[in-house]
Amino acid sequence: MQRVLAAELAELAARASDADPHPTQRPVRVAGWVHRRRSLATVTFVVLRDRSGLVQIVVKDSAALAQVQALGEESVVSVTALPSPNPSAPGGVELVEPEFEVLSEPDQSPPVELWRPRLTAGLASVLDNAPVALRHPRSVATWQVAAASMQGFRRTLGAAGFTEVATPRLVGASTESGANVFTVDYFGKQAYLAQSPQLYKQILVGVFERVFEVGPVFRAEPHDTARHLAEYVSLDAELGFIADHRDVIVVLRDVIAGMVAAVAEEAQTASALLEVRLPVVPDDIPVIHFSEALRIVGAPDDEPDLAPAHERALSEWAIERHGSEFLAVEGYPMVKRPFYTHPDPDDPRWSKSFDLLFRGLELTTGGQRLHRYADYLTALRASGQPADPYQGYLQAFRHGMPPHGGFAIGLERWVARLIDAANVRAVRLFPRDVNRLFP
Amino acid sequence: MQRVLAAELAELAARASDADPHPTQRPVRVAGWVHRRRSLATVTFVVLRDRSGLVQIVVKDSAALAQVQALGEESVVSVTALPSPNPSAPGGVELVEPEFEVLSEPDQSPPVELWRPRLTAGLASVLDNAPVALRHPRSVATWQVAAASMQGFRRTLGAAGFTEVATPRLVGASTESGANVFTVDYFGKQAYLAQSPQLYKQILVGVFERVFEVGPVFRAEPHDTARHLAEYVSLDAELGFIADHRDVIVVLRDVIAGMVAAVAEEAQTASALLEVRLPVVPDDIPVIHFSEALRIVGAPDDEPDLAPAHERALSEWAIERHGSEFLAVEGYPMVKRPFYTHPDPDDPRWSKSFDLLFRGLELTTGGQRLHRYADYLTALRASGQPADPYQGYLQAFRHGMPPHGGFAIGLERWVARLIDAANVRAVRLFPRDVNRLFP
Repeated sequence: MQRVLAAELAELAARASDADPHPTQRPVRVAGWVHRRRSLATVTFVVLRDRSGLVQIVVKDSAALAQVQALGEESVVSVTALPSPNPSAPGGVELVEPEFEVLSEPDQSPPVELWRPRLTAGLASVLDNAPVALRHPRSVATWQVAAASMQGFRRTLGAAGFTEVATPRLVGASTESGANVFTVDYFGKQAYLAQSPQLYKQILVGVFERVFEVGPVFRAEPHDTARHLAEYVSLDAELGFIADHRDVIVVLRDVIAGMVAAVAEEAQTASALLEVRLPVVPDDIPVIHFSEALRIVGAPDDEPDLAPAHERALSEWAIERHGSEFLAVEGYPMVKRPFYTHPDPDDPRWSKSFDLLFRGLELTTGGQRLHRYADYLTALRASGQPADPYQGYLQAFRHGMPPHGGFAIGLERWVARLIDAANVRAVRLFPRDVNRLFP
Repeated sequence: MQRVLAAELAELAARASDADPHPTQRPVRVAGWVHRRRSLATVTFVVLRDRSGLVQIVVKDSAALAQVQALGEESVVSVTALPSPNPSAPGGVELVEPEFEVLSEPDQSPPVELWRPRLTAGLASVLDNAPVALRHPRSVATWQVAAASMQGFRRTLGAAGFTEVATPRLVGASTESGANVFTVDYFGKQAYLAQSPQLYKQILVGVFERVFEVGPVFRAEPHDTARHLAEYVSLDAELGFIADHRDVIVVLRDVIAGMVAAVAEEAQTASALLEVRLPVVPDDIPVIHFSEALRIVGAPDDEPDLAPAHERALSEWAIERHGSEFLAVEGYPMVKRPFYTHPDPDDPRWSKSFDLLFRGLELTTGGQRLHRYADYLTALRASGQPADPYQGYLQAFRHGMPPHGGFAIGLERWVARLIDAANVRAVRLFPRDVNRLFP
């Protein structure tokens, strides 16, 4: 018999029609994990979990009762039973008169109680037991928000003429910052793990004009904090033929709106379970200059960067002043930006780059990049870096590159903001940090 | 003035209507790279390249002629001009009376001649100069076929209830084969780069039932051959609640059909340029047993594997016998398969795994996996491996896993087959091998 999903049972009951007034009077087959058992005097309830959700099975028959007694939590079963409307059951339908077939029996009880509404174990224990703990409906829902976000990112950019690319993670030169980079034994030579696809996505603007990439990036981050990971998913985009960074902000706005829409559409149940408060993305994200940001938060006008408390204050200001949970701060001082950043032609102390603040935190850094070969040589010299490790990168600029810019969104940081997670580790499937390389 | 793309000019000319009989009599603005210049006695043709294709610009005015003389190949320009129908121009339209604005001037002539129909430089030189050589229309088209394939893979599986996952590339144990694995200095300890998401995707069947992942995998492959890369894109899928590996083949068939459809729809121009011969994917891919395959190719019946010549002969046989460019060979001997492979219950010398042959080569390996904890302990012991590095993996099986299986497709191998490339390096953006870590 064809298997049906838990979530399809409610639809089945709702499907009663003149032609088929009793769709619930024929047996159905469900399959999944024994999520929970509750035994009363004359009846036992088995809650079955499958990829779509939960369904309650009512067991009264004594042979079935005996079988269910022996089924530990996380047993994998196939169940043939009759659907029966019950407004108090999940989905409004429960299954009665079940016959159980055991597909796989667990060797032990789970180390975490998956049936509780929330995992009660601490984060370290949850992460240690991730292969099982991830089965908790809230963990499943968290990742569904992430998966929908990735899809929204790609869909928006694909529709806007961006080409998806796959750039190498194994790189020959430790560029960009040099710090916090992992080294790899590469056939007896030294290679590095990419900290971002920055240099490659710029090169590829020369090939495809508009590119995006979703992939892992690596930071040998020695600090064990709630918002750093050694490996995370970077959502990168870069586009050519821009006037300046404001064109990048327009694309970023559309991308975030697309990600929000994808979560709303494709992770609806997950969002409801997690009580995700999706942001309204304004048609135009408010933009203020860095110097104005300093004034708003009352910081000295020679501060080169915004402190976390400043970012929180600016987010509050944006809500009060513009009714927006997003605020772009443009014109960050050049001294705090990487060498490829485009300066403001009107005042080269400031840059054509920006940070996007969302709910009190920096979500994204982006901006216009240099595009002239001579400017790169000057910028590398000024930053005290040798040109040699950048030969491949510089070659793109030697042969004609349009004005361009882009941005990167950290997937985990985005999801953590959406579901209000205190620690980014809670939103990755198997996080990596200075102390964690397993499971 | 709003920019139009080269490919949109042909549409513009075709858009003539009663309301707007002369859409080509208003100036338009295009932007891109100077792909080629051809000077005749009284006229110079400039071919402009943008992300959509090529457009021919006719220069007659003496001031513009002088300006164009100075524009080297790969200059980035913005051009305002009048569209003019010309059946012999690319797209049936050319631009006349142009005004050029230079956005970026190259520092040198390109090291490869991008304007030739095919790059004449050898593969090594093309790869050395990838930041520029990738701009060649055939290279662009090649990657467009790859990008469309990735999209088709995700779209098909997303529609079939699969969840996209992102599993770690930094792993704590060198599992699976132990050979050809890259080591990473991980905060003073040793980590490894994932050779595949195999173990994680199986764990995640316990979480989401059906998962897929598109991401980089790493092989420290010391052999410098035309079909090995140190880093490539793996298209992975894994699903639970299967009867056996035949259910996996059904999903694989749909995935390949979805990839072919995506290339046909989204990389139409690219496919035409490259003369891609897209395969017809039969509703049911023919399946033969490994022992039958040996008989067909006339190999001894104790051969444990198929040689490349056997694979070519089997592909020919499948075309003759079944009219199919695809052939699944099931039941590979257990001795040649990894420890997690499910044996055939009827004869445990054979496995519930398969290879999918396409145009004479193995495209995919897949199959049913073990799902019982005790079976894993036995299999690891039999393979002489310690259980300790597999603790996280084994935990999933200790707590109930459904019968499951999956497959992996190497993106580069797939694209190389489609475009008939002799070397997989030609279909990656920046390939990595034992001798190549730059650019």
